[in-house]
Amino acid sequence: MLDESRSPGRGRFITLEGGEGVGKSTNLGFVCEFLARRGVEVVRTREPGGTPRAEAIRRLLLDPAEEEPLSDDAELLLIFAARAQHLERLVRPALARGAWVVCDRFTDATFAYQGGGRGIDNDAIATLETLVQRGLQPDLTLLLDMPVEAAQRRVSERGNERDRFEQERADFFTAVRNVYLRRASSQPERFAIIDAAQSLEDVQQAIEACLQDWWGGMT
Amino acid sequence: MLDESRSPGRGRFITLEGGEGVGKSTNLGFVCEFLARRGVEVVRTREPGGTPRAEAIRRLLLDPAEEEPLSDDAELLLIFAARAQHLERLVRPALARGAWVVCDRFTDATFAYQGGGRGIDNDAIATLETLVQRGLQPDLTLLLDMPVEAAQRRVSERGNERDRFEQERADFFTAVRNVYLRRASSQPERFAIIDAAQSLEDVQQAIEACLQDWWGGMT
Repeated sequence: MLDESRSPGRGRFITLEGGEGVGKSTNLGFVCEFLARRGVEVVRTREPGGTPRAEAIRRLLLDPAEEEPLSDDAELLLIFAARAQHLERLVRPALARGAWVVCDRFTDATFAYQGGGRGIDNDAIATLETLVQRGLQPDLTLLLDMPVEAAQRRVSERGNERDRFEQERADFFTAVRNVYLRRASSQPERFAIIDAAQSLEDVQQAIEACLQDWWGGMT
Repeated sequence: MLDESRSPGRGRFITLEGGEGVGKSTNLGFVCEFLARRGVEVVRTREPGGTPRAEAIRRLLLDPAEEEPLSDDAELLLIFAARAQHLERLVRPALARGAWVVCDRFTDATFAYQGGGRGIDNDAIATLETLVQRGLQPDLTLLLDMPVEAAQRRVSERGNERDRFEQERADFFTAVRNVYLRRASSQPERFAIIDAAQSLEDVQQAIEACLQDWWGGMT
């Protein structure tokens, strides 16, 4: 299999991961600014979504329509359908022209939410990962981690109506967090764990230190 | 693997297959009437679709939005997402309570359209089939077959705006037809090939003879 991450001139693929309420959106902007200051083209995107068609799939995924619960298999397949579209239409072309792609969630989230949270077989997720990604993996994944209770408090302080995932219970999010931490410790060369329970200033100092370090190794 | 088709009291699963313009809708009604006259509960449905959520996925699949072509992988995964939802929410519960499900298209169509038409690897389709169906297969598949040119003429006589699939060219539909015929000849115990180029009366006589025969073997 072609290891696309080795192609010369190719951009880099950075993902941010973590449960609800850990501050992904705020810190995604921070990562993009760090990179933009270094003169690279930055493409900020998210999953599921990132293109109009993939965002339409996202809306189906988040719709709480209670009269017809979404089956676990359908949820998993919709996520990978959105991912296939996003990779083909946005991520691969951006990386190919040398842009850096910064993405709010990727396949680690599928292992965490659908694998850990819903209990879907990891082999099924891995099969779809191979089918859709064909070897493409993030170059760097920042995992924003904090205790579930504190993150839940932040979500309720937002006061918005909750989507299908935000409605899940604490044991769901505990399972999600555990999978994230397990994946991070088994792939330390790709993951950086950021303590997201600190003040925003401290979180961003930690992210900056990590990016500096990684950038130094890249260039 | 549990062979669900052997459970006592379970209904039967009948699918109608064929390219555009072969008369599936008309003849689907005919099959349902045949069964209803024999006193079984009949559930008429279609793929992709069959439940509100699966129909929402169908709309994404058929949307010709030309500014962002749907990737082949995304198309395949959306089809199986709709199928997973349809099986869990409609088909399996209906079969379990003893109803007979008559479905306009199923996985044979995926092998024909996405495999034959789009050139997607058959192994990928088979992997998704196993993941989503877990051994469930139609008990009987009626393949309405006719030459591609004649079917195309019928589609253009309808005069409606064409969806993403109806916009494909003759060589696409020739590949679709060839896969259908190959599958039918390799699984003769499940498939019945109906010559759909005959008059509607003759087509329905052929369907009736086939159902009579099959019904006799069932009861």
